[in-house]
Amino acid sequence: LAISKFIAEIKKIIARENIFEDVEEKICYSYDATGENFLPDLVVFPTCAEDISNILILANQYNIPVVPRGAGTGFTGGALPVRGGVVLAMSRMNRILEIDSENLTALVEPGVVTGKFQAEVEAMGLFYPPDPASLESSTLGGNVAECAGGPRAVKYGVTREYVLGLEAVLPTGEIVQTGSAVLKSVVGYDLTRLLIGSEGTLGVISKIRLKLLPLPAARLTLMAIFSDVTEAAASVSRIVKARVLPAALEFMDEFAIDSVNDYLPGTFPEDAKALLLIELDGPEAAIEQEAAQIESVVTGPNVISLKKATSAAERDRLWLARRSISPSLQKYNLKKINQDVVVPRSRIPALISGIHQVAARLNLFIINFGHAGDGNIHVNIMIEPGDEDAAGRAKQAVKEIFKLVIDLGGSISGEHGIGISKAPYLGMELSPAAVAAMQKIKKALDPKNILNPGKIFPEL
Amino acid sequence: LAISKFIAEIKKIIARENIFEDVEEKICYSYDATGENFLPDLVVFPTCAEDISNILILANQYNIPVVPRGAGTGFTGGALPVRGGVVLAMSRMNRILEIDSENLTALVEPGVVTGKFQAEVEAMGLFYPPDPASLESSTLGGNVAECAGGPRAVKYGVTREYVLGLEAVLPTGEIVQTGSAVLKSVVGYDLTRLLIGSEGTLGVISKIRLKLLPLPAARLTLMAIFSDVTEAAASVSRIVKARVLPAALEFMDEFAIDSVNDYLPGTFPEDAKALLLIELDGPEAAIEQEAAQIESVVTGPNVISLKKATSAAERDRLWLARRSISPSLQKYNLKKINQDVVVPRSRIPALISGIHQVAARLNLFIINFGHAGDGNIHVNIMIEPGDEDAAGRAKQAVKEIFKLVIDLGGSISGEHGIGISKAPYLGMELSPAAVAAMQKIKKALDPKNILNPGKIFPEL
Repeated sequence: LAISKFIAEIKKIIARENIFEDVEEKICYSYDATGENFLPDLVVFPTCAEDISNILILANQYNIPVVPRGAGTGFTGGALPVRGGVVLAMSRMNRILEIDSENLTALVEPGVVTGKFQAEVEAMGLFYPPDPASLESSTLGGNVAECAGGPRAVKYGVTREYVLGLEAVLPTGEIVQTGSAVLKSVVGYDLTRLLIGSEGTLGVISKIRLKLLPLPAARLTLMAIFSDVTEAAASVSRIVKARVLPAALEFMDEFAIDSVNDYLPGTFPEDAKALLLIELDGPEAAIEQEAAQIESVVTGPNVISLKKATSAAERDRLWLARRSISPSLQKYNLKKINQDVVVPRSRIPALISGIHQVAARLNLFIINFGHAGDGNIHVNIMIEPGDEDAAGRAKQAVKEIFKLVIDLGGSISGEHGIGISKAPYLGMELSPAAVAAMQKIKKALDPKNILNPGKIFPEL
Repeated sequence: LAISKFIAEIKKIIARENIFEDVEEKICYSYDATGENFLPDLVVFPTCAEDISNILILANQYNIPVVPRGAGTGFTGGALPVRGGVVLAMSRMNRILEIDSENLTALVEPGVVTGKFQAEVEAMGLFYPPDPASLESSTLGGNVAECAGGPRAVKYGVTREYVLGLEAVLPTGEIVQTGSAVLKSVVGYDLTRLLIGSEGTLGVISKIRLKLLPLPAARLTLMAIFSDVTEAAASVSRIVKARVLPAALEFMDEFAIDSVNDYLPGTFPEDAKALLLIELDGPEAAIEQEAAQIESVVTGPNVISLKKATSAAERDRLWLARRSISPSLQKYNLKKINQDVVVPRSRIPALISGIHQVAARLNLFIINFGHAGDGNIHVNIMIEPGDEDAAGRAKQAVKEIFKLVIDLGGSISGEHGIGISKAPYLGMELSPAAVAAMQKIKKALDPKNILNPGKIFPEL
């Protein structure tokens, strides 16, 4: 069999301690945050680009799928070995190679945990903004492969904006350097950004050159509670029109509020129907001025309260409510079907009311929260595990919500990618010509379809 | 002949007033800022994506090169029809289709002049940061195709950071929508950024969805004059370390200063060896605080003067010196060979001293200025027109300077692209594997090499 010959060859080039063959070991690399499972034939821990290159060259010879994996925190199945083969577990390539405080750049291996990296640079007075919710476990390599976002994207942009260059191994084994260590470079095609968000289908990332910022001098958090969701959404537009660009502008709908209130009683007033959590950062004088501007535009009969926090302890208290959504949902013991859709900011009220209508009609419990500042809302359909009928209605709801999102001029994925979960819906957003162009690129770089097959384009 | 049959077919599908056939008309579309000339067989002004699609389909049938052209202000020959064929002059697709002040986005056609667009959005209290020096004549389509930068890139990034999505016509004629109108989207490969900076070789841009920002409330300009170039460069690092990210941080070396002093006598003191022009923008309180921080770190025996300007008139006076470099050079009646190299910020002193050494050894007059904040320096080699020997030495200097730049960890093009001017040097920065990957993408999307052939990769 090809796979056993392939494994025998792998053992000749990769040290024994960097190979997992036993089922109990392989199970740990068979799932991700989707809850789905696919057992790989082998798990290999590369230690350098050359390892990855050698594995890919062999995989092309023996026609074995190769699936790169960060921390496996993805919501769309990007790291799942859906056709078996080798999982390339990148967790042992986890060194921070350089933090250059003169030029505000860093060079890291892909297995570095995002939160750990942020702590390191912040200790030096520097700042790496992208902050996916998974940051305590997810890795920079996974963040790059999926183009992760997070609350700060509204002001600072997504992972893409912080990657200057990559070392990557192409599907056929060539090691390439893309981009540059400098802040500007227009030399040939933008392979860096072609790889970012390609979900491990066009190359395996072996080094990342990141751009850093100076750490903002101060932070200030505001929480506004509304008796009306439309008013909350309108406040988002008014804040931006007042020329304030918050570092985070988070939204919770009434079901998210109720869930947190059940979990932490008394957190919110009973008539709260929507909430905005607003974080400002920058020079102290500037954020005080911005807070005053926000206070002047977030006002009116539908504003139940507007609290301001400057100390770290007070800020943590306000953020606790937002951070408690996921734990609060656990108590329901329900299965969470999590979709991260995006609409133009001004269409958030239409999106939320449309989702509430879908929920009512299909008799589903749907909780919405997320990044109102950039229109990226996390839609969570909560169903009883094993309830086949509810699962069917949830599937229908996903389709209707995606259609609504597209009609509102939005996108079916803001930061989670397509993977396998959203692959059936790709054609709702992309035209056949756009998909065909992407597939031509995939075929040009991976003629045998070795690298992470079955992702994004289900037919490949 | 293929070309005359092709022209006959074009006349059937494109209105007569949108075709230029006469030599005197075609000459106007034969050159760009490189000073080189290539006469096209035909100039066509498309009015919509369908025109472009129809032309490309015919061009594929008859094997005729198609060269998209914005305003022809490029420095590397991207818009030159080096193998004849059709120039697609995009200047009649010049409508601003939408400015959405709720969602801070705009939809434009590629022929919109960048400066005109900036004026329109600024009148609405909005802001489009990319500011290439050519902005009064260059177009948004050309800016996207070359990934234009400008002084504000140090704080705001380059054109790439402001493009949310495109409508583009692929080399084989398919019209595709890339990206999205929203601020975040990870749905398939990033065709948007693959097209940005691809210099018109992978697609013809027919619509651009841009991201806007709120217009900063205030601006403040500082000018620091130094008796020592190393001190000027060190000041750049100190400013960034003080957590100040200026909206512009421009540099002039002693030869640029001397040239402006000859043109506008008394502008600078005789012992000035370097200059930094620093622009701050943001809330008034913030920029006053940042200016004070700059004054506290830009100090010492090598600082001849540090001036601060807040009124528009005072700011214009300070910028006049920077803007006078190009006109001041004209009086020498010399040919200017302009290269835009980039190095990590901290390596600017090494770059400048290395260039001065090359200039002395090869007996050349080289003037350096540019965007110190992001390490992007414009190197201008000034030679007598028709002096073959000087031309040879200049060519040698370019090669040596590119080698120096690569050795310093930099890039041979920050914002001008590769085109034909830098194509011979592509291999100095990119490995054969990286070039091969790019060429595979080109071949996958443009199998007959119809769209802008001979650019970036001289062998294609």
